[in-house]
Amino acid sequence: MSFELTERARAYLPRLEAFMAAEVYPAEDVYTRQLDELGRRGVPPVMEELKARAKKAGLWNLFLPDATLAAGLHNLDYAPLCEVMGRSPIAPEVFNCNAPDTGNMELLWKYGTDLQKETWLKPLLAGEIRSAFCMTEPDVASSDATNVRSTIRRDGDHYVINGRKWWTTNAGHPDCRILIFMGKTDANAPVHQQQSQILIPMDTPGVEIVRRLPLFGFDDAPHGHCEMQFTDVRVPAENLILGEGRGFEIAQGRLGPGRIHHCMRQIGAAERALELMCRRMRARSAFGKSLADQGTLRDEVAQSRMEIEQARLLVLKAAWMMDKVGAKGARAEIAMIKVVVPNMAARVIDRAMQVHGAGGFSEFGLAYQWAWARALRMADGPDAVHAETVAKMELRKYN
Amino acid sequence: MSFELTERARAYLPRLEAFMAAEVYPAEDVYTRQLDELGRRGVPPVMEELKARAKKAGLWNLFLPDATLAAGLHNLDYAPLCEVMGRSPIAPEVFNCNAPDTGNMELLWKYGTDLQKETWLKPLLAGEIRSAFCMTEPDVASSDATNVRSTIRRDGDHYVINGRKWWTTNAGHPDCRILIFMGKTDANAPVHQQQSQILIPMDTPGVEIVRRLPLFGFDDAPHGHCEMQFTDVRVPAENLILGEGRGFEIAQGRLGPGRIHHCMRQIGAAERALELMCRRMRARSAFGKSLADQGTLRDEVAQSRMEIEQARLLVLKAAWMMDKVGAKGARAEIAMIKVVVPNMAARVIDRAMQVHGAGGFSEFGLAYQWAWARALRMADGPDAVHAETVAKMELRKYN
Amino acid sequence: MSFELTERARAYLPRLEAFMAAEVYPAEDVYTRQLDELGRRGVPPVMEELKARAKKAGLWNLFLPDATLAAGLHNLDYAPLCEVMGRSPIAPEVFNCNAPDTGNMELLWKYGTDLQKETWLKPLLAGEIRSAFCMTEPDVASSDATNVRSTIRRDGDHYVINGRKWWTTNAGHPDCRILIFMGKTDANAPVHQQQSQILIPMDTPGVEIVRRLPLFGFDDAPHGHCEMQFTDVRVPAENLILGEGRGFEIAQGRLGPGRIHHCMRQIGAAERALELMCRRMRARSAFGKSLADQGTLRDEVAQSRMEIEQARLLVLKAAWMMDKVGAKGARAEIAMIKVVVPNMAARVIDRAMQVHGAGGFSEFGLAYQWAWARALRMADGPDAVHAETVAKMELRKYN
Amino acid sequence: MSFELTERARAYLPRLEAFMAAEVYPAEDVYTRQLDELGRRGVPPVMEELKARAKKAGLWNLFLPDATLAAGLHNLDYAPLCEVMGRSPIAPEVFNCNAPDTGNMELLWKYGTDLQKETWLKPLLAGEIRSAFCMTEPDVASSDATNVRSTIRRDGDHYVINGRKWWTTNAGHPDCRILIFMGKTDANAPVHQQQSQILIPMDTPGVEIVRRLPLFGFDDAPHGHCEMQFTDVRVPAENLILGEGRGFEIAQGRLGPGRIHHCMRQIGAAERALELMCRRMRARSAFGKSLADQGTLRDEVAQSRMEIEQARLLVLKAAWMMDKVGAKGARAEIAMIKVVVPNMAARVIDRAMQVHGAGGFSEFGLAYQWAWARALRMADGPDAVHAETVAKMELRKYN
Repeated sequence: MSFELTERARAYLPRLEAFMAAEVYPAEDVYTRQLDELGRRGVPPVMEELKARAKKAGLWNLFLPDATLAAGLHNLDYAPLCEVMGRSPIAPEVFNCNAPDTGNMELLWKYGTDLQKETWLKPLLAGEIRSAFCMTEPDVASSDATNVRSTIRRDGDHYVINGRKWWTTNAGHPDCRILIFMGKTDANAPVHQQQSQILIPMDTPGVEIVRRLPLFGFDDAPHGHCEMQFTDVRVPAENLILGEGRGFEIAQGRLGPGRIHHCMRQIGAAERALELMCRRMRARSAFGKSLADQGTLRDEVAQSRMEIEQARLLVLKAAWMMDKVGAKGARAEIAMIKVVVPNMAARVIDRAMQVHGAGGFSEFGLAYQWAWARALRMADGPDAVHAETVAKMELRKYN
Repeated sequence: MSFELTERARAYLPRLEAFMAAEVYPAEDVYTRQLDELGRRGVPPVMEELKARAKKAGLWNLFLPDATLAAGLHNLDYAPLCEVMGRSPIAPEVFNCNAPDTGNMELLWKYGTDLQKETWLKPLLAGEIRSAFCMTEPDVASSDATNVRSTIRRDGDHYVINGRKWWTTNAGHPDCRILIFMGKTDANAPVHQQQSQILIPMDTPGVEIVRRLPLFGFDDAPHGHCEMQFTDVRVPAENLILGEGRGFEIAQGRLGPGRIHHCMRQIGAAERALELMCRRMRARSAFGKSLADQGTLRDEVAQSRMEIEQARLLVLKAAWMMDKVGAKGARAEIAMIKVVVPNMAARVIDRAMQVHGAGGFSEFGLAYQWAWARALRMADGPDAVHAETVAKMELRKYN
Repeated sequence: MSFELTERARAYLPRLEAFMAAEVYPAEDVYTRQLDELGRRGVPPVMEELKARAKKAGLWNLFLPDATLAAGLHNLDYAPLCEVMGRSPIAPEVFNCNAPDTGNMELLWKYGTDLQKETWLKPLLAGEIRSAFCMTEPDVASSDATNVRSTIRRDGDHYVINGRKWWTTNAGHPDCRILIFMGKTDANAPVHQQQSQILIPMDTPGVEIVRRLPLFGFDDAPHGHCEMQFTDVRVPAENLILGEGRGFEIAQGRLGPGRIHHCMRQIGAAERALELMCRRMRARSAFGKSLADQGTLRDEVAQSRMEIEQARLLVLKAAWMMDKVGAKGARAEIAMIKVVVPNMAARVIDRAMQVHGAGGFSEFGLAYQWAWARALRMADGPDAVHAETVAKMELRKYN
Repeated sequence: MSFELTERARAYLPRLEAFMAAEVYPAEDVYTRQLDELGRRGVPPVMEELKARAKKAGLWNLFLPDATLAAGLHNLDYAPLCEVMGRSPIAPEVFNCNAPDTGNMELLWKYGTDLQKETWLKPLLAGEIRSAFCMTEPDVASSDATNVRSTIRRDGDHYVINGRKWWTTNAGHPDCRILIFMGKTDANAPVHQQQSQILIPMDTPGVEIVRRLPLFGFDDAPHGHCEMQFTDVRVPAENLILGEGRGFEIAQGRLGPGRIHHCMRQIGAAERALELMCRRMRARSAFGKSLADQGTLRDEVAQSRMEIEQARLLVLKAAWMMDKVGAKGARAEIAMIKVVVPNMAARVIDRAMQVHGAGGFSEFGLAYQWAWARALRMADGPDAVHAETVAKMELRKYN
């Protein structure tokens, strides 16, 4: 097992860190201010400026392991870069490396037809449009994908889609143009072949954003987590991805890298929180003593460092295995990091919040990062489902 | 030690529960909708209707141990009632039992002059106006009250107030008329006699709401947690409470009951979350199995029940001691519940959220209740400060 | 709910505490030394001396709620006394209040015939003989009592017993004269009526102690936890308790008080550990600082105090309910304390050990008390079984 | 960062595993039986047989990074081998890789004179004699090495040693011939130059084993953890190691590898416990359900797997850094694993115990492995001291 990066990947790291320091961190407050000024519904201009600069700096599409279309880095190479991006909530989009667009781009890259790629992958890779992935439904436990109830019915040269989805992230973004939708094409097929995935342009009649769901109290503007109604939505049959009944297979293929990227970013979020915590401890005193000299806080710093180190190594191992034996071979490791990392990040950020006093709940970006870490204990499968995967594989050794 | 309630208190309980079931729970969604319709800046009409009905039903001011002005219940008697109110975020205000108004009313009742009572306590008890308590400051660790830096300077028949406060809850409420402000009257006095408290009518020139602070993204409208600037705010000298240098003493007197009420309500919040969790488990299935049959979730139900039971008993003991030996004698117990209860509530609510899937972060009121439990690990003193109080008293036994 | 003790119970407490201070604590080392001198197989003489003095002091059989035969205290009254005894591993036996003898005495008192009482209960109450309870078997998960496989076969005027038991505490005691044995009389009866309980005098042919089981290396001499073989053991039919098929019912009746007594003692064990911890912290320095000034240790003191307080209140509630509505009505509360208390005690004692350095593992009695707390997470039913009881009763509320 | 092993190390692994399976695991019960038969004071013959076979198989002294004297493996290479040995409590000695002998051999190899090496290192490497390290003292907090109070006084061509030590592991072994002793040569020197280390042959007059300390109730025979009295013990001046005042420096040099080896072995102990747990779950049923189907136990299997994976990776990183930048450069990582790994192992083993029912406390080797994991939270420095090291280094980044 080796976590050595390729020379190319190593070269990216200092450039990315320099860009973060010079451009991204200073823009965080600007972004928030602009977003507020836009009534939290438009795209803050600073984001488009940053994207342009990142593209020009060659720090663009680092996530895609295709050397023609993008940086062509493998998972292990991408891990430290993705971690650095995870330090700022606005960074991933700056580098066109934000969820769910990355997962959607990978999906199109892997499973899309040439036409689908030309029409949707190309502008996505260019950062010109945004996309969303419609899977979770309000009425069923969607952690079990076989519960998905929406329908995709063939009708001549078209498919007609009906159903209700929620927590469709990005659908609220002004530039969101394309949805990847999961639903049932055949309720009578074997359980894992009932689902299909299909492309729905955002402006298709019958597509409706019902409301934006708050995450804790955060609106996650402008991307939003939307509840959506699909009523007799009609799209050409060629919009189907890979073929009828292959929705489950595609979901699996999409979620592997998606989960690992989330985890890489969470390492970065935890690192940033720990840095904020240490700086705060150095800067504040209470009861006549620097916070940096309070034993319980020092212990929390140590625990945080130990938890981050362990979690990062496990993410690297998962990335190394993804590269080596593919998502299927790395299934246990991906399940593990999906449980370990968001829980770890939430704990680390929580400690950092507490050290910041009441301001920890409103300032410094900590509460938002915490909420996001907490949400990832649910998104792409709740803890319990991934832990069960780990348990099953462990117990199988002793059949 | 006896947790037997008086007959009067026992009589209140079913009436309160019936009112909650008939009036309050059904109004929760109405309240939210009306608040949104008001642009989250006005008072939802349903709140004033509920207050009128509660008053009429004799379920009003149950918190105040003064039989002339209010229900006259002691802490132990009030505990189960306060718990029931804590089940709904909108309930305490319905019964005029919400923080920080209760704490402020108690403060005026205990330490106010007749004039101060007539002017401010009376309309507060009538539920006609709201109040806020200005203590925490952004620039210092306010968990150590001696750090408070704002100034209250005597100038003839007046005091002139300058400083910056934040997390001033209720100051954003349209009916907030009066602020209780803590600041230094004498920086050269012994450390615990430097502070004083003074009444500042909301409309006094120089009082400014700078912004409303989000709590995990929640705006807590209409009450708000405000950052406030006080610039040469001038009030009559008679607005001073109790006397110069007695601010610390008042703060102590205010915080005892304040903390215990918070904890009582948190027990109710945890109970409601557990109820929601159990109901959800009965209603949902995943992977071919009712959630109510999933072993790990059942274990979480059991852990939650055990944690709630223990925490409630400790709250009752603290209340019993408050009644028996006063806030000072109950100091260790109050410190204990202040650490134990919000942590417990946050854990229980977190489990309930997870069982609700992604909706746990946006629907069912769970995310908000969690945020509030989390905030209480900081408000009125962070965990670490109260734990230190407990440690000090324990170690002192072996001097 | 009232935890007020009767005047009689209140009178016992200072007398018991005085006896502990004057007689029991100073005898702990003596007991260990004498036991070692006896090759860990005889009864240390100091124990018989202490028993005689306790009897004379009227501190005897405090556990039995029968005012004719014993102190006649109810559970709530007994709780603080039992807690105090739990502070020393040798104390319960001094007052004839040690497990499993107390459980066995209660069983005989409740379910025994006059002859059984005369023959066995009388000398047990006098502290002249010891007894054991044979339930757990090595080959099955005995947490589920229906798994018990040993057989009790009727043969004319006798029963013939065969089977293997282990973790039979007290069987190794030189004065152990009587065993209460659980086994199947009818494998074809409904599941909860297959088991019976029967009295087996220790000297009956076919009764064999195979070996003594160590508990984390401790031999628990002289009582021992024995693995026992029963081969064609023949006893008169009149030795059967209550009737064929009632073994399960008796087990339930025995375990209620047994569990609550264990928990009361664990509170005492935790209190003693916390006291040792605090004293040690005051006495030692490291890195130029008194341990009493180390923040993390102070926090552990506080956490321990908070955990003990909560657990004790829950035990009191369970005792109050046992007195009020019986073991069945208090089923949830007993299940709760059975999970909560030993876990709490193990945590508190573990912290105390760590503060004592390497000596914490060998001196001060801490390692032994820890082992015993840990064992109680299994004895009389593992955590998981009791938690499941709590979960079942909680979820049932929402059927 | 690469965890790739050299080809030589990779070749050892299957051979070691085969030897464990064929020779060591089957001998565990034999060893215990023979030890009991010897009254727990002699060396079980099976151990000498196994040592001979291991030597012959070339699985000998794998720990020492010296290719002339031993296998010459670096830390990273040794890690997986050491882990495998850690699976059995008797294995490390079989391969001459047991603490504290390995640490003592390394110390002599690094700091010993030619004469010291010839006299003591040679027979130690041959497995002919055993050794002990005398550091911890009963009267002071020895976690702070500057507290050590024993004296080493120069007297002509000799040194005279006085003091009391305890927890001197191995001193009870019949073949223990040599002690490495830490004490003060100059109480007036700067704090870190007061201590020296000196070789004391076991048979020197004035060396006395006062008693053997139990670890929990385990006697750890035949090696023992001894309390020792040193009274006017006189040894030649040439027995001093490295020079006066260099005891602290030597201790640091010794503890680095010592700690990492302990941690490697603990990973193995945890793996074995998890294997036992899974096998038990497959083999047992309770309440009509295989333990392997109980959700909470499955979750514990998953948690255990996730914790082991993370801890192992951190150990590998520490080993890799030791090889790359030395013990000083790897200081933070060594401190981290010293906290993380024994805590993890104790948790994993504790879960395995609970699944084994009461037998978990006496059979299967689990209770012993747990006790050892617990002891390692203290040995070579308590958790708190290592966590403080991590905190200090983390906070230093933000000076």
